[in-house]
Amino acid sequence: MAEYSARELLHAVNSTRIREGNPRVCAITARIVSDLFRTIEEFDVQTSEFMSAIKWLNAVGDSGHFGLVAPGLGFDRLLDILEDERARRTGNLHGTPRAIEGPLYVPDAPMAFGEARLDDGTDEGDMLIMEGRVLDARGTPIPASIVDVWHASPEGFYSHFHPKPAPYNYRRRIQTDEGGRYRFRSLMPSGYAVPPGSPTAVLLDLLGRHGRRPAHIHFMISAPGHPTLTTQINIPGDPYLDDDFAFATRDPLIVTLESVEDHPSIVAAGLDQPFTRIGFDFVLSPATEGELAPAPIEKW
Amino acid sequence: MAEYSARELLHAVNSTRIREGNPRVCAITARIVSDLFRTIEEFDVQTSEFMSAIKWLNAVGDSGHFGLVAPGLGFDRLLDILEDERARRTGNLHGTPRAIEGPLYVPDAPMAFGEARLDDGTDEGDMLIMEGRVLDARGTPIPASIVDVWHASPEGFYSHFHPKPAPYNYRRRIQTDEGGRYRFRSLMPSGYAVPPGSPTAVLLDLLGRHGRRPAHIHFMISAPGHPTLTTQINIPGDPYLDDDFAFATRDPLIVTLESVEDHPSIVAAGLDQPFTRIGFDFVLSPATEGELAPAPIEKW
Repeated sequence: MAEYSARELLHAVNSTRIREGNPRVCAITARIVSDLFRTIEEFDVQTSEFMSAIKWLNAVGDSGHFGLVAPGLGFDRLLDILEDERARRTGNLHGTPRAIEGPLYVPDAPMAFGEARLDDGTDEGDMLIMEGRVLDARGTPIPASIVDVWHASPEGFYSHFHPKPAPYNYRRRIQTDEGGRYRFRSLMPSGYAVPPGSPTAVLLDLLGRHGRRPAHIHFMISAPGHPTLTTQINIPGDPYLDDDFAFATRDPLIVTLESVEDHPSIVAAGLDQPFTRIGFDFVLSPATEGELAPAPIEKW
Repeated sequence: MAEYSARELLHAVNSTRIREGNPRVCAITARIVSDLFRTIEEFDVQTSEFMSAIKWLNAVGDSGHFGLVAPGLGFDRLLDILEDERARRTGNLHGTPRAIEGPLYVPDAPMAFGEARLDDGTDEGDMLIMEGRVLDARGTPIPASIVDVWHASPEGFYSHFHPKPAPYNYRRRIQTDEGGRYRFRSLMPSGYAVPPGSPTAVLLDLLGRHGRRPAHIHFMISAPGHPTLTTQINIPGDPYLDDDFAFATRDPLIVTLESVEDHPSIVAAGLDQPFTRIGFDFVLSPATEGELAPAPIEKW
């Protein structure tokens, strides 16, 4: 009775129950297990290879890196493509394109009203001012919307994910003013790579790939009556702009940089040195039923 | 250029390279990613569901539990089935059946010669004596082979995987004597369940499954000129004998228990109370080229 063929074993794995489970988890798990059984059989995976994979998977989780491996294998961009397709089906693919959240968001950044300085003053780098408005699909400004912004330092490090403690450095929530305007001062972020020697880097290396992202700035824009927009803007000129390891770059999100070097403009901006200006308006699509996602299968 | 369909994205993920990678890792990863892309699309997996999965995967790895999830989803037993098929193809499916190693082996247990006591004397339980020989496929005893044995306590706990420190409790390597004989005294193990509340238990619960294993004793038997045999013996009568969450029970490995209660036999065994005797001979198959596995793709 307990001697199985591979096929009988797969059936046992996918049908064993002592009570009704979550139907969706059961169905998706059965599909993934079935696919992996077939892969192991067709590739004649050796026990030693499987055990190496288990060790690698434990190391990925121990580093909290599944959120880094996933975009590297295209999954986060795939989810954006599917979200876009859902929005298209309901005739609601408007506004600023979405882009992947990535694993480095930290909630509850300090609130600012209208404008903020993002860097804590300890880093050196190129001064950046970014400003614009949050608009609805008809171009009407949305006051009191929240621009939640986070980005890497000029050296490519994210606060809260770096040994140096710098609470909420390069992270703010900015509430737009009565004209829907936001504005922040910061230092130009640089691109970065997955941590060298990490399990993610080991996989990418075996795949013959690099783990570099081009310079970008993350945003999560929220306003009542609109689905929250998670997106990024990309800094032009970065050598990895079209070679992002996370496949996240989208052409409409590549901004234009404006060098501001004349004294009156510098003074008008309240600064004392030349800076780079980025102007960018975020356009939110209206909420529709089609964009109210079903409840997640399991909150963790 | 950076606007992809799901299909174009998949192609980009599976073909992006800056140098040649490991061909086998590339091929297997491409297959797994392709299957997962199709699963996400066909099940219309929501971003929130995917993010829950990422959180769960990180929790599994953080607990070091991939080696526990894998047997629960049948993978370890599948690998044994495939090993058996390889051995059958080379006409070398002889000897004691293999059974999964599980994630609770600890190398370098103390060595003993001929016989050993496995428990450290701090637990109470039913006395067990197990003895037998290590034989080759023709029935010839193999002296100086190593019987590496490990099992759970009467309460179902494994040393080194339990808060109570008890180095190598219920773990020994016993070198067989000139007659190929081994013998050990221990306490009868009980079955056990995956840790309650652990990520593995959460998955099993969503699948409507239990996470229980029937009582068993693990062995790794090694001798020069033979492939190492990883196996288990099962204790008859356990309610989960044919309902192992790891699908590992094999009929030829269910042993017979012999109650020894007469005084002369007890004294002859050097004990002062009734005990259970298990007699079991391990039969090793000869090494063949077909059983020399290829080098693992990645040592971790």
